[in-house]
Amino acid sequence: MNTFGKNLTLTTFGESHGPALGGVIDGFPPLIEIDLQRVQAELDRRRPGQSAITTSRREPDRVRILSGMLDGVTTGTPIGFIIENTNQHSADYSELAHAFRPSHADFTYQQKYGIRDYRGGGRASARETAARVVGGAFCRQLLEQQGIRLAAWTHSVADIEARTADCDPESNAVRCPDSGAAEKMIQLISEVKAQGDTLGGVIALRIEGLPAGLGEPIFDRLNARLGAAMLSIPAVKGVEFGMGFEGCRHRGSEMVDEFTVDALCHITTATNHSGGIQGGISNGMPVYMKIAFKPVATLLRDVNTVNDAGQPITLHARGRHDPCVLPRAVPVVEAMAAMTLADMMQTFREKNS
Amino acid sequence: MNTFGKNLTLTTFGESHGPALGGVIDGFPPLIEIDLQRVQAELDRRRPGQSAITTSRREPDRVRILSGMLDGVTTGTPIGFIIENTNQHSADYSELAHAFRPSHADFTYQQKYGIRDYRGGGRASARETAARVVGGAFCRQLLEQQGIRLAAWTHSVADIEARTADCDPESNAVRCPDSGAAEKMIQLISEVKAQGDTLGGVIALRIEGLPAGLGEPIFDRLNARLGAAMLSIPAVKGVEFGMGFEGCRHRGSEMVDEFTVDALCHITTATNHSGGIQGGISNGMPVYMKIAFKPVATLLRDVNTVNDAGQPITLHARGRHDPCVLPRAVPVVEAMAAMTLADMMQTFREKNS
Amino acid sequence: MNTFGKNLTLTTFGESHGPALGGVIDGFPPLIEIDLQRVQAELDRRRPGQSAITTSRREPDRVRILSGMLDGVTTGTPIGFIIENTNQHSADYSELAHAFRPSHADFTYQQKYGIRDYRGGGRASARETAARVVGGAFCRQLLEQQGIRLAAWTHSVADIEARTADCDPESNAVRCPDSGAAEKMIQLISEVKAQGDTLGGVIALRIEGLPAGLGEPIFDRLNARLGAAMLSIPAVKGVEFGMGFEGCRHRGSEMVDEFTVDALCHITTATNHSGGIQGGISNGMPVYMKIAFKPVATLLRDVNTVNDAGQPITLHARGRHDPCVLPRAVPVVEAMAAMTLADMMQTFREKNS
Amino acid sequence: MNTFGKNLTLTTFGESHGPALGGVIDGFPPLIEIDLQRVQAELDRRRPGQSAITTSRREPDRVRILSGMLDGVTTGTPIGFIIENTNQHSADYSELAHAFRPSHADFTYQQKYGIRDYRGGGRASARETAARVVGGAFCRQLLEQQGIRLAAWTHSVADIEARTADCDPESNAVRCPDSGAAEKMIQLISEVKAQGDTLGGVIALRIEGLPAGLGEPIFDRLNARLGAAMLSIPAVKGVEFGMGFEGCRHRGSEMVDEFTVDALCHITTATNHSGGIQGGISNGMPVYMKIAFKPVATLLRDVNTVNDAGQPITLHARGRHDPCVLPRAVPVVEAMAAMTLADMMQTFREKNS
Repeated sequence: MNTFGKNLTLTTFGESHGPALGGVIDGFPPLIEIDLQRVQAELDRRRPGQSAITTSRREPDRVRILSGMLDGVTTGTPIGFIIENTNQHSADYSELAHAFRPSHADFTYQQKYGIRDYRGGGRASARETAARVVGGAFCRQLLEQQGIRLAAWTHSVADIEARTADCDPESNAVRCPDSGAAEKMIQLISEVKAQGDTLGGVIALRIEGLPAGLGEPIFDRLNARLGAAMLSIPAVKGVEFGMGFEGCRHRGSEMVDEFTVDALCHITTATNHSGGIQGGISNGMPVYMKIAFKPVATLLRDVNTVNDAGQPITLHARGRHDPCVLPRAVPVVEAMAAMTLADMMQTFREKNS
Repeated sequence: MNTFGKNLTLTTFGESHGPALGGVIDGFPPLIEIDLQRVQAELDRRRPGQSAITTSRREPDRVRILSGMLDGVTTGTPIGFIIENTNQHSADYSELAHAFRPSHADFTYQQKYGIRDYRGGGRASARETAARVVGGAFCRQLLEQQGIRLAAWTHSVADIEARTADCDPESNAVRCPDSGAAEKMIQLISEVKAQGDTLGGVIALRIEGLPAGLGEPIFDRLNARLGAAMLSIPAVKGVEFGMGFEGCRHRGSEMVDEFTVDALCHITTATNHSGGIQGGISNGMPVYMKIAFKPVATLLRDVNTVNDAGQPITLHARGRHDPCVLPRAVPVVEAMAAMTLADMMQTFREKNS
Repeated sequence: MNTFGKNLTLTTFGESHGPALGGVIDGFPPLIEIDLQRVQAELDRRRPGQSAITTSRREPDRVRILSGMLDGVTTGTPIGFIIENTNQHSADYSELAHAFRPSHADFTYQQKYGIRDYRGGGRASARETAARVVGGAFCRQLLEQQGIRLAAWTHSVADIEARTADCDPESNAVRCPDSGAAEKMIQLISEVKAQGDTLGGVIALRIEGLPAGLGEPIFDRLNARLGAAMLSIPAVKGVEFGMGFEGCRHRGSEMVDEFTVDALCHITTATNHSGGIQGGISNGMPVYMKIAFKPVATLLRDVNTVNDAGQPITLHARGRHDPCVLPRAVPVVEAMAAMTLADMMQTFREKNS
Repeated sequence: MNTFGKNLTLTTFGESHGPALGGVIDGFPPLIEIDLQRVQAELDRRRPGQSAITTSRREPDRVRILSGMLDGVTTGTPIGFIIENTNQHSADYSELAHAFRPSHADFTYQQKYGIRDYRGGGRASARETAARVVGGAFCRQLLEQQGIRLAAWTHSVADIEARTADCDPESNAVRCPDSGAAEKMIQLISEVKAQGDTLGGVIALRIEGLPAGLGEPIFDRLNARLGAAMLSIPAVKGVEFGMGFEGCRHRGSEMVDEFTVDALCHITTATNHSGGIQGGISNGMPVYMKIAFKPVATLLRDVNTVNDAGQPITLHARGRHDPCVLPRAVPVVEAMAAMTLADMMQTFREKNS
């Protein structure tokens, strides 16, 4: 289904090469001032064609708000919006009407629905995430008014890893806070693109200002909700919280986050191996997690595959694609986190310990 | 909230040291023969005190079915069940009424609710997962009748990893398919237990027989649903599908799963780097994933922490705890997978490609 | 499905003649003092055998709370409970294993599930509403702490209607506030029972103290939610709000509720034809509604029907049944209202006009 | 919230005087041929300005489908659509920015949200139901392919009641199947309109071809779902099924629907007092119900009320409004029924008795 969230929801629609895509944000609180230029700015961060290392498809991706606002503030009613598709080259895709591109969703959509919109991947195109970015941009502004801030960045591309944070991730095309690593990543992406090949990597996310006590302790744990949100992004193959997979190799005595009392007499933890979550509930420390993106499946090479008649064919992939999705996925990760948290905050009520 | 699933659901209740825990399985199809001895057998796999490397708490964990069955088959009405608690040593826990055990959920529950049942961790105790195992045992039998089989096993404990599969994982106390690694794991767990310390590790899960076409392509992807299910298990800090985090280091050309046609003229993939899922939908190949468990937080050592008045205290942990949860978590992983799949199968309708 | 509500839910299970029925209350706020004797007292109001005009089945209907409470207050975790069945006369029902009782759910259950627990109506028995009364009793106490009070009573039996309110409805066996009408109703029920026949009627409900602004304005209107709650009670065939069906015969100018300002400068309405709801949202005036119950379908007469082989048969109805459900349905109506409102209050936040 | 349904859903957005309204139909099965001209035709039945007895607002109400279809069939992905607003006379409404129109939702929206779009009633305008009609038009075509047909008509206006069915309800402006009553209704509406007053009435709905076995037996009964659907329509104050309120006055022996076997050896009922539903589940007989609409609250007269400062004011109502909503509500009733049934059919699986 195409609705995300429980009490504050986003419902999305739209195919890559249809007339438009869009969505409905529902359950958003009233009387929240929304800067629509910042909403557009988030879309611009996800927009194709923004740098030399992204796809050359050029879409202005202008969002048009159709409801739910009056004089710059939300009214509590659903916020409908659309983004018109303007730069569809559907002709590029006629070859794909009957072909199953490897590691794409062509085959699985066909199996699920018995039909698929083959033009540009249809609904399976990552273009669908534009609507999520709009939803996230509204939620981020809401969260900021509650003192909650979040940021994602490119942690690694292939085996090049950020080791320091010496720059604003937004200052380079790959959105990495380590300027040296960023340079190497951009270099590698360019090389691999020239070979018609692609790259994966890891995005990191950090959330600050979350109150302690957020999260439902059994099935709707904060980590389960954030994890599902991230695993719903195209190309994501793994998530981990705090010390994650690496932490499993350590002894319990090394991973324990001892409680301590800070100068303001707040209970806090001396370390944060658990990434701000215990028993599925936030403890007031920063939440951090990592998200693994597989390399893009579309290669600018000839690939062998089969068609929907079960015959072997060779695909001469053309289209316009990213050699590495990470730079453009950073705002999508932030959007999914913002929507998850804003939704969960709707039923949050501060308790006294 | 304490309900898992959408069309086939499990709702659970119960504290570690209350009179009983239990649950309600709803939306389960009628006329399914259920072997209740197999349900009990799954509970026995999760039961405390089953081997030298698990907690010494002794609970028979007998499940009592209260509704929803007639003459050995399900009737389509909700299946209520309870498991009485019999071996509570609440006296052990009086010291904990005001203490926040580090890396436990004591503090976060207190922040969320302003109150918590401190006896044995209350609702935050992993004892809660017994109800999940009952739900999973019903769902597993349902899935088997549809040709779907799943199995989990201990893949690693600390840095000891299974490298082969030369035995039935159920044949050793640690549930590892590599008999040599199993021996080392058991040895390590015993040593670490003697030191009052604990261990984490990774459980692997494999699902076979899933039809192609299962999964909702945007937010309710098969991987998002399975991921959230696993992240709802206590102590889980990460999940990955197919090649997971490792796959992000490879080129797209290395990770592509080319389509091919098998001897029976079915479309299949030559490799399975993606773990049987493309675009959030099953492709008919086996689904496999890994789940990271942090080391148990309860140390049998003195630990420094604070109490609910914000004063530093020293805890002399006693209670009865597992030095490593993995052996007992294997049936919980299977249960969560079985419930996720059985739920998703409720709206599945086979389509022709 | 067997879960009621969204953020505060009740999930129920249990058949009329199984070992027990019960439920799980989830999302109930923590730190609410609950008087369990009052919970039991609500059950006693619904209990069979409480007066000469109800069924002679004798069930103590003792509720046993299994979780979610500590020292008399709720903890925020799910409240599991069971009510053991003790007085099943299953032998009474063997004749019904293959018969479809007219206007009962035997046939429809069989059509839906292909199987049914024929003993005492199984899940379709109104005995199932006992679990609702427990859920409602918790919610009522929660609502009272927010200043919200609700009461239901028997408005009419057949064509005998309450015309005044000169007594406590709980003071007579039929739960009617008009002592004269009550006497006639009891008389009529006794006569009709002696004839082996049954009666229907109308229950009225009044809610006071609701804040203005409760209700979601499009699909989850306060009236839609209350209406669905009432229509989920066995035997209910209609609901109306405020002036209801009668109001449709009047001109708009007669039905308008003009706004006025009261002595405390609160905006209120001069009349309350709309029953306290406008645009699906409470306006702060009392909410009132009526609920129509059809006459009980079980006649103590021979009835012609068919069996599951499609053959005509004659049923010699025995069993133990109410000649008129209204007296025992009053606490069920209150329970459904209390759960609906308590659920909706979970996301209510007071706004300034 | 603004989403209707569970497995097949409609999410709507839009204000009366915003740029557009629209919605998203999700969970709609793939490969269903949809005649978009019939979708538009349903909208035309709801369109303002269609006859002398409806509002004079003139909106073409053209629906634009943005996604989810390919070559005339559905693809299984969400169907997004918008309807542009073209004939807003917002200037008409400036007087209402601070006034609370009696029996309208102005006050309750203000209480709920602290803000409201006062232009033309904003989200509370019945104009919102246009999106429901689009959703219903898709669902109706789906149901027809399963042999399910439904029709609504005007049963009564004020105290003029249809007593026969001698014409196609669509053949007269009031959508009544009794041509004599229709004439009187139209006459009365014209008279009352000339007086600046308004009328209410009752719409009847009949559903044929439903399979036996549809409906969830406890909370999500077929009648509860249909009832909630109808009670979510603006101005609805009551619903009843089968013999409804009238049936409560009869003896059980008069209301029983005896089972019988028809010429094709199907089990059916000799009468249908229960309106095709027993125990919340369809029994294969026609479902019929009635829906009460209060008289329109907007009078073309001066009305006394208060403003948002709590001061008494006199409103000189202008705007453009219907003197009686029933003719235009008929397609809305059908749409809500179609969506309810199509949603419930998604999890329906035929069972053998």
